Amino acid sequence: MPYGFNGKILRVDLTEGKTWTEELPESIYRRYLGGGALATYYLLKELKPGVDPLGPENMLILMCSVITGMNMSGANRFSAVAKSPLTGGYGEAEASGYWGPELKFAGFDGIVIQGKAPQPVYLWVHDGQAEIRDASKAWGKLAGEAEEIIKADVGVKGVRLLQTGVAGENLVRYAALVNELKHFNGRCGMGAVMGSKNLKGIAVRGKNKPQPADKEAMFTVYKWFKEHYDRENDPMHDMGTSRGVPSLDQDGILPTRNFREGSFEFAREISGKTMKETILVNRGTCYGCSVACKREVKVEELGVDPRYGGPEYETIAANGSLLGIGNLKSIALANQLLGQYVLDSISTGMAIAFAMECYENGILTKEDTGGLELNFGNEEAAIKLIEMIGRREGIGDILAEGVKRAAEKIGKGAEKFALHVKGQELPMHEPRGKRSLAIAYATSPTGADHMEAPHDPFYEAFGHEEMNPLSPLGLVEPVDRLDLGPKKVKAFYYCQAVWSLYNSVGMCDFDGVPIGHVRLEKLVEFVRSVTGWNTSLWELLKVGERANTMARIFNFREGFTKADDTLPDRMFEGLQSGALKGKKLDRKEFAEALRLYYQMAGWDPDTGYPTRAKLAELDLDWLAPEQIATSAAD
Amino acid sequence: MPYGFNGKILRVDLTEGKTWTEELPESIYRRYLGGGALATYYLLKELKPGVDPLGPENMLILMCSVITGMNMSGANRFSAVAKSPLTGGYGEAEASGYWGPELKFAGFDGIVIQGKAPQPVYLWVHDGQAEIRDASKAWGKLAGEAEEIIKADVGVKGVRLLQTGVAGENLVRYAALVNELKHFNGRCGMGAVMGSKNLKGIAVRGKNKPQPADKEAMFTVYKWFKEHYDRENDPMHDMGTSRGVPSLDQDGILPTRNFREGSFEFAREISGKTMKETILVNRGTCYGCSVACKREVKVEELGVDPRYGGPEYETIAANGSLLGIGNLKSIALANQLLGQYVLDSISTGMAIAFAMECYENGILTKEDTGGLELNFGNEEAAIKLIEMIGRREGIGDILAEGVKRAAEKIGKGAEKFALHVKGQELPMHEPRGKRSLAIAYATSPTGADHMEAPHDPFYEAFGHEEMNPLSPLGLVEPVDRLDLGPKKVKAFYYCQAVWSLYNSVGMCDFDGVPIGHVRLEKLVEFVRSVTGWNTSLWELLKVGERANTMARIFNFREGFTKADDTLPDRMFEGLQSGALKGKKLDRKEFAEALRLYYQMAGWDPDTGYPTRAKLAELDLDWLAPEQIATSAAD
Repeated sequence: MPYGFNGKILRVDLTEGKTWTEELPESIYRRYLGGGALATYYLLKELKPGVDPLGPENMLILMCSVITGMNMSGANRFSAVAKSPLTGGYGEAEASGYWGPELKFAGFDGIVIQGKAPQPVYLWVHDGQAEIRDASKAWGKLAGEAEEIIKADVGVKGVRLLQTGVAGENLVRYAALVNELKHFNGRCGMGAVMGSKNLKGIAVRGKNKPQPADKEAMFTVYKWFKEHYDRENDPMHDMGTSRGVPSLDQDGILPTRNFREGSFEFAREISGKTMKETILVNRGTCYGCSVACKREVKVEELGVDPRYGGPEYETIAANGSLLGIGNLKSIALANQLLGQYVLDSISTGMAIAFAMECYENGILTKEDTGGLELNFGNEEAAIKLIEMIGRREGIGDILAEGVKRAAEKIGKGAEKFALHVKGQELPMHEPRGKRSLAIAYATSPTGADHMEAPHDPFYEAFGHEEMNPLSPLGLVEPVDRLDLGPKKVKAFYYCQAVWSLYNSVGMCDFDGVPIGHVRLEKLVEFVRSVTGWNTSLWELLKVGERANTMARIFNFREGFTKADDTLPDRMFEGLQSGALKGKKLDRKEFAEALRLYYQMAGWDPDTGYPTRAKLAELDLDWLAPEQIATSAAD
Repeated sequence: MPYGFNGKILRVDLTEGKTWTEELPESIYRRYLGGGALATYYLLKELKPGVDPLGPENMLILMCSVITGMNMSGANRFSAVAKSPLTGGYGEAEASGYWGPELKFAGFDGIVIQGKAPQPVYLWVHDGQAEIRDASKAWGKLAGEAEEIIKADVGVKGVRLLQTGVAGENLVRYAALVNELKHFNGRCGMGAVMGSKNLKGIAVRGKNKPQPADKEAMFTVYKWFKEHYDRENDPMHDMGTSRGVPSLDQDGILPTRNFREGSFEFAREISGKTMKETILVNRGTCYGCSVACKREVKVEELGVDPRYGGPEYETIAANGSLLGIGNLKSIALANQLLGQYVLDSISTGMAIAFAMECYENGILTKEDTGGLELNFGNEEAAIKLIEMIGRREGIGDILAEGVKRAAEKIGKGAEKFALHVKGQELPMHEPRGKRSLAIAYATSPTGADHMEAPHDPFYEAFGHEEMNPLSPLGLVEPVDRLDLGPKKVKAFYYCQAVWSLYNSVGMCDFDGVPIGHVRLEKLVEFVRSVTGWNTSLWELLKVGERANTMARIFNFREGFTKADDTLPDRMFEGLQSGALKGKKLDRKEFAEALRLYYQMAGWDPDTGYPTRAKLAELDLDWLAPEQIATSAAD
C-alpha cells in the first residue's frame, strides 16, 4: 500500500446492484491528488456527453484525497461531483465533517456510483467491503429521522452517514448532501443526483488509518500549526463564518434584498457576534480540526435543535439580508429546515428572494403563491417556502427548478430578477464591490461560485507580510477591491490555482491560506510528509490548474461556450444602498478582464477553449479539441 | 540594510569619468533577484534600442544576486550583460570564481557601466567606493601579465580582478571576460563590450559580508548539503566537466568535425579520465563550493601553466573533436591561449572549425590563410589561429567577426558551414541527438545556447526519484532524448524556468538540480533563509520566466522577429558517423514544437511576442507591445 492513501476506489452500479473495487496507479494519484481533480478525471473518461443529469447514466462521485484522514486542521474535506442538474454542466460541492476520513479508514479513497436502484437503497461501506441495502424505511423522512433509521439498521457504533434529503428525493435541482446532519456538500444539486439514483445515503465505518511516509516530518507540521494557531484570538473560532457581517455591511457589500442593495439595516442583529451572545450553545468542528468554526444553536420557542448545527454566513445572508429578514432566530429555524430537507441554503435563499422580487413587482401574485405575501422581510413566508420547495408543493415546485428555469416558466420579465450564472444562483458575495468575483462567477465551471479564490479585501492585504500568506506566490503588492485591471486578473488567476488545489487535496479555505493558519509551504511539507513524494508548490498548484481546466472542458463537451461566461444584468446596475451606492460593473472593463483571464489561463481568447499548449503542459493531451470534437458538436 | 544584499548598485559613466551609487527598493530585488533578470531590467529601462554594441552608448552590467556571497556550494555566479556585438541582441554570460562575492563584500550588488573612457582605465571598487584609474600599462598585455600589473597598482591584498583581454581590446566579437584567470563569462562577446569602453578590468575587494535573515535556517541547508553531497564519489569532482566525453561519443552526440559527425575516434584520449591520469595537477573551485569541478593542468613541454586552469568540456570538444584534434596536451595549450587572449572557447573553436571546413571544400585556400593548411586535425594550425583571432591578424581578422559575418565576407557558399543561431555559434551539444536543444538553440535570446535547460538524457531519468531532482516540478515520466513532441516541449519549458532562475539567482547548473546535490526545495529554503522573504518555488520560477520573457522582448526591440528562431541547415541533415548516423531533425516536427513552445511560454504563436496576459502575469505590463512599438518599428 502506498503512503497516505488506499489506492482503491469503490465502484457501484446501482442498476446492476453490484459493487467492485478498482485499483489506481500511484501516478494517477500524484497527477490528480483526489477531490475535484480526480473525480473530473472519471467524469471525462467515463461519462457520455449529453446525458440527463437526473437519469441513471449520470455518475455521482465522492472523492477524498491523498491526505484525507490525517489529523491536520482543515485537511479533511471531500468532494461530491456529477453532471449538475442545476447547470447541465460540471457539478462539484465539497464538505468536511467526519465522513471523508471514515471512508478512507474503511479502505477506499473514493466512490464512483452509476446507474439507478429499482427501489430506495443505501450503501454500507466498511473494511474494504460494500453492501447495497434496502432504505425504504428512511425514504421520505427528514434528515434527522432518516439518519437514525439507517444507523440503527447498520447497528455498528461510530458509523458516519452521508445522505440526501426529501429535497433530493424530490429532485429539487439544488438539493444538497449532508453528513452527520451538519456538514453539507451544498451546491450544484448533488443531492438531487443521489436522489435520482434511489440512493438515500452512504454509511461508512473503518479502522484502518492510512500511514504517512514520514511521521516525524508530519508531526513537525502539526507542531508548527499548534505553535502558530491562536484559537482564543481567532474570530473564526469565536464568531464563526458570519463574524464579518457587520463589516460587509459597513463596506456596502452585504447582499441585501436580492442584490439590489449592499447594506442591511439589521446587519448587527444577524452577525456572528449576536449569535454568540444569544442562541449559540456550542462550537462544532470537523475531523482533526482545531478551528471549530461550526455553530450549534438552540431556539426553544421555535423548536430549533443543536443537532442540526447552526447557520453559516452563506445561510445567514441568503436567508437573512437577502430576504430583508433581520431576525436571527427565524434564520436559525430556516437553517434547521434547510438541514432537514437537505437543501443548498444559498440557492434556496436566492430562489425565495427571486420570488419576493417578482411578487413585489407584480409578476407573482397571491394566486401564484397560494396566498403567501411574498414581501421582503416576511419571515413566515420564507420559512413556509423552504418546506414547499423541499416538498415541491405549489410555487415551491417551480422554485425547486432554480431561478433560471423558474423565470422561464413564469415569464413576464421575471428573468431580470433571476440572478444566476450558467443556471446556478449567486452566492452571498458582491462582485460590484469585490471585483475579482466578476471573473470568478463568470468563469467558474460550476456557475456562480464563491469558492474559486479568496475575495478582494484579501488582495488589499498584499504587502503586509504577516497578513499575507499568499506571499509565496509573489503577490506582494496590494490591489484595490474595486480594481478589475491586469493586476487583479493576475492575483485572481494565481489564487484560483490555490483554491482549486484545495478542492482537490481536500483543504478547507477557512483553515488554509486566507486565514493565515496554514501557510502554503506548510501545506507542501504536509503533502510531502504524508505521500513521500518530492513535490513542491509548483507541482501542487499545477494540479489546481489541471482541475480547473478539466472542468472547463467538461462544460464545453456539454455544449457550453464562452458565451456562457456572463453575469446577471443587475451587476451592471448601481447598488441602491450602502457605502458603494451607485457602484456598478462596466461591461467593457469586464469583457477586457475576461479576455485577459482567458489568455492567462491558457485558453484561446476567441473560443475560450484551453489551448493545445496548456493541455500539453498539464498532461491533458487526451483532451485536445479533436478528441472531444464529436461530443462538443452534439 | 536588507538581508542578503546591499541594496546598492554602482553606476559608472566612463565618458564623464564619474561614479555614483544607486539604491534600489527591496521590491525590485524580490521581483528580479539579480543576475540576468535584474540586469535586463536595466537594459530595458535605460538602453536606447538600435545602438552600436561596440559604441559608447552600450551598457555593460555586472550583476550579483540576493544570495551571492554566502558559503553555499555553487551559489556564487554573477552575470555579465550587454547588447551583444556578436548577435546584435541580448547578450549574457555567467561566471563563478571569486569576483562576484567580493563585489558584494565591497558594498555593491552590481555595477552598471555606460560610456567610453578616453584612454584605457580600470575600476577599483572597495568599501562602498569606486575609482576610475589609469590602465595603460596593462593594455595590450596577455591576461596573466595584465592581472599582475593591475593588482600591483592597487597594492591591496586579496583583490579580485575581472578583466577583458587582448581579444576584447581588439573587439573580437566573441571576446570573453575572465576573473582570476580561470573563470569566464564566456559567451556573447562581453569582453569586446568592455574593451570597446577602454575598460581593462574591474578590481574589487571588500570585507562586509551581507547577513542572512535566519542564520539557523541557512545552516540547516548547509548541513543538509554536507550530509547529502558525497564528493569522493562525484564524477564531476573527480573528472570535471569533461567526464562525459566517452559516453557522448558512444551515444553518437559528441560534436565532431564541425557537427558533421557525432562520434570521434580519439574521444577517450580527450576525456576527463585521461586528463586526470595525465596532465591534471590540481582541482580548482569557486567561492564557497565543495564540488571543485575546475581543472588545473600542466604541460611542461608546451609551457602550459596551471595558473590558467585547465580545459572544460566545452573547450575540449570545441578545440578537440570539433576540429578533429585528439591530442589533449595540444588542447591544453589552446585552453591557455584562449585564457591569455580571453576568448570564448566555444565560438573560437567553432570559427576555426568553420574555417577548416571551408578550407577542405576549397572555399578558403592557402592564400587566404597565410599559408596555413587548415585541415581538420591540424593542431598547429588551430593553435596559430587562436592567436591570429585574438590579435585580428590575417584570416583571424575575418574569423574574429564570428562565423555568420565571416561567411558573409567570404561568400562562395561558406554560410553552409557557419553553424550559428542569431549569429552565435553552436555550443558542444547535438540537437539531433538531444532534441530539446532544437528548441533551446532556436529560441534562446542569446542565440545558440546550451544553458537554457538540462539536456535530454536527463529527461530520460524522470521517474527515477533518486536520479530526478526535478520531481518537484511534477516531471515524473521519462521522455526519450529523440522525442520532440508535446512531452518534451513541456519538460523543456519547465526546466528552462529553472535554468533561467539559476542565471538570475546566481546558481551553478553543475551544482544544482541536474546533479542532484541541491534539490530545488533546498534552494527555496536557502533563498528564504538568506532574504527573510516568505517565498516559494512558484515565485522563484516565475523570476526565471520573467527573465526569459524580458530578454525576448529586448531582442524584438532590436528588430528580431520569430523568423530568427531558426537552426542551421546542418541540423536537418543526417549525422555522418556514430550511434545516431543518419539521424536528423524533421522541419515539420521542429516547426510544430516551436509553435507549441511559443504558446506554452505565453508568446503569440503568430508573432512570437509575449502576450499581454503573460506580461501582466509577470508584472511586465510596462513592456506591452504598444510601449515598445516605436523602437520595434525602427
